Amino acid sequence: MRYPEGLLRVSRALSRLPGIGPKTAQRLALHLAFHREEAKELAEALEGLAALGVCRVCGNLAEGETCPICQDPSRERGVIAVVETVADLFALERSGEFRGLYHVLGGALNPLEGVGPEDLNLESLWDRLEGVEEVVLATSMTVEGEATALFLAEELKRRGVKATRLAYGLPVGGSLEYVDEVTLGRALEGRKPL
Amino acid sequence: MRYPEGLLRVSRALSRLPGIGPKTAQRLALHLAFHREEAKELAEALEGLAALGVCRVCGNLAEGETCPICQDPSRERGVIAVVETVADLFALERSGEFRGLYHVLGGALNPLEGVGPEDLNLESLWDRLEGVEEVVLATSMTVEGEATALFLAEELKRRGVKATRLAYGLPVGGSLEYVDEVTLGRALEGRKPL
Ligand SMILES: [Zn+2]
Ligand SMILES: [Zn+2]
Repeated sequence: MRYPEGLLRVSRALSRLPGIGPKTAQRLALHLAFHREEAKELAEALEGLAALGVCRVCGNLAEGETCPICQDPSRERGVIAVVETVADLFALERSGEFRGLYHVLGGALNPLEGVGPEDLNLESLWDRLEGVEEVVLATSMTVEGEATALFLAEELKRRGVKATRLAYGLPVGGSLEYVDEVTLGRALEGRKPL
Repeated sequence: MRYPEGLLRVSRALSRLPGIGPKTAQRLALHLAFHREEAKELAEALEGLAALGVCRVCGNLAEGETCPICQDPSRERGVIAVVETVADLFALERSGEFRGLYHVLGGALNPLEGVGPEDLNLESLWDRLEGVEEVVLATSMTVEGEATALFLAEELKRRGVKATRLAYGLPVGGSLEYVDEVTLGRALEGRKPL
């Protein structure tokens, strides 16, 4: 049987999403075909994304010119956390531990894939360093994230701004038994007096 | 941080879908916020569902008055498989073993939840029995599916039409939708008169 084209189209569009396989996509498409209200609601929400822009200060998602964080007067203006993506920004926000501002790079340095400093949202970072006391380098703990952090640390030093890096260590609640040895080694290295 | 409303809206709409939890929904919403082409494509596909109707003969999804299966001249017109849902119809089609037509009930008898014969797509089944030699009762192997099959078998007997049931070999209590195609094909092959 040839499935109805309208259904196939929804299925194909869903299967392009990360983590959605063809079977899940087909199941969801069928669900949506029989729950038109949900389909309509989702379609309208997706159209609403068009109104979503990028904060011209930090690169976070924004409904206006600037994002809710940059607009928030209670945030510490002297500390900026540099992250690779908005997803990373959200993850840090969920920790509830950071009260400063953000800067979203839009990626990490990756010479093998041809991603250089000019491909990252950097010019606007240099432009906002006045009055900033500390930049927290919150890029990923990957080869690319580390290289990016090192690059940024040097650039910030040249500009006379203190750079810090997220600590390596054990995940809270994690048993030593299940942590990989590299992480464990770093946690040991970074041990602190109690 | 308050997430942008446009993002929350997509996230909420996605989390209403079966099997999509709030975390997955947020991750997908963020992906869509940064892949506007995919969001647009999905929104357009969802709007296209409005053009999708129900086959007036069998209850399958249809782009016109009747579905591709009812229109297909190569299908055996003398055999009708009765299924509970379109998802079950698709599952049987994937087995590749059935060459007849379908009839989608839109559910199964469930006295406890007040679902009686009048709530199922049955009148149109009685109306299409002329020239039909066999009705394959392909309802689920659940209590409700079995009860529905027994009910239909009696009704078909009264009308002088042979009724068969999918062979066991299907997991008892299992919905057709989640059965692999080989098992489903075998079960169809071994169908028996009721
Ligand atoms: Zn901002
Ligand atoms: Zn049909």
